[in-house]
Amino acid sequence: MSKGEETKRAIVDQALELVSTVGLEKLTIGALANATGMSKSGLFAHFKSKEQLQLQVLEEARQRYIEVVVTPAFNKPRGEARLRALFELTLKDWEESLPGGCIFHAVAAELDDQPGPARDYLVAVLRDQRDMFARSAQMAIDTGEFRKDLDIDQFVFELSSITGAHPHFGRLLGDPNSEKHARKAFEALLERAH
Amino acid sequence: MSKGEETKRAIVDQALELVSTVGLEKLTIGALANATGMSKSGLFAHFKSKEQLQLQVLEEARQRYIEVVVTPAFNKPRGEARLRALFELTLKDWEESLPGGCIFHAVAAELDDQPGPARDYLVAVLRDQRDMFARSAQMAIDTGEFRKDLDIDQFVFELSSITGAHPHFGRLLGDPNSEKHARKAFEALLERAH
Repeated sequence: MSKGEETKRAIVDQALELVSTVGLEKLTIGALANATGMSKSGLFAHFKSKEQLQLQVLEEARQRYIEVVVTPAFNKPRGEARLRALFELTLKDWEESLPGGCIFHAVAAELDDQPGPARDYLVAVLRDQRDMFARSAQMAIDTGEFRKDLDIDQFVFELSSITGAHPHFGRLLGDPNSEKHARKAFEALLERAH
Repeated sequence: MSKGEETKRAIVDQALELVSTVGLEKLTIGALANATGMSKSGLFAHFKSKEQLQLQVLEEARQRYIEVVVTPAFNKPRGEARLRALFELTLKDWEESLPGGCIFHAVAAELDDQPGPARDYLVAVLRDQRDMFARSAQMAIDTGEFRKDLDIDQFVFELSSITGAHPHFGRLLGDPNSEKHARKAFEALLERAH
């Protein structure tokens, strides 16, 4: 990486942490100048617009999700072991990897009624995630761990329901049993898939 | 209602619709002036601050949830029939009652890392909702429809997971089967509660 690229990466990292707590809307060049101690003009040299900055942050989040969740999970054998890893890493490691928790959760409700490139990018990332869960469930059918007539789309809906509910009950409502409930719901889901 | 109260109520209604699509952060006196065609100073006469306006909107949302979901559900007999009504009305009628869908969903991710009166109010509303689901599940145990050893907190976690996942899959990802998946997940949850 060149020095310029390194600086840019460091700025995007700070922007990502900021967005995980305050959302995309508050990610202005001014707020980022405060967080990084850089001048606004210095930041404008790296990011031409707020929109471009938002996209860079979402792209960085996608990279991190691959590092924190996808790569370690894909080191597990295909089938139920990999699905368990995807679930556990998304529930716990990914949620804890940023100060405000899952950034996709943080920006999803913000963007769902806001057409534009940021929404399009987010939807593409989340569809990729859904498809990855679906392929992993298909592999668990192929290994014989899951039953052949499993409704994969239904399985993925329920899996995502559980990981999505944890920030709601844990982070927002402060329920100390949220993680335990999420794991128990996942075990029940696996049981019905056998 | 006096004329002043009527005007205020009409303004809060418009603010609520605005918040359901753009979030609380963008609900400024200026944006509301644009949406209502009223002057900023006229609006300031009704709401002393942005914070007070936010609280009024959340209070109005709570009232509407009672009208759209709680009251019709409580006309059903206690037990499984009432739980079914609570689920269906939350999933469908409530989600469709505002242009941007469930307003609690819209502001939850926005407020979860933002301490203050708006977050406190939202958390109180959502805890009330959770407790209402829990009491309704307890009644279904009392009527003999649900098994006596049902883990009620676990049941409520899973019920809320399902209603929370629908805006994600339906509104954001554009999955036409989202509602069908939500209903199927709910039926499986009820089956395990019997």
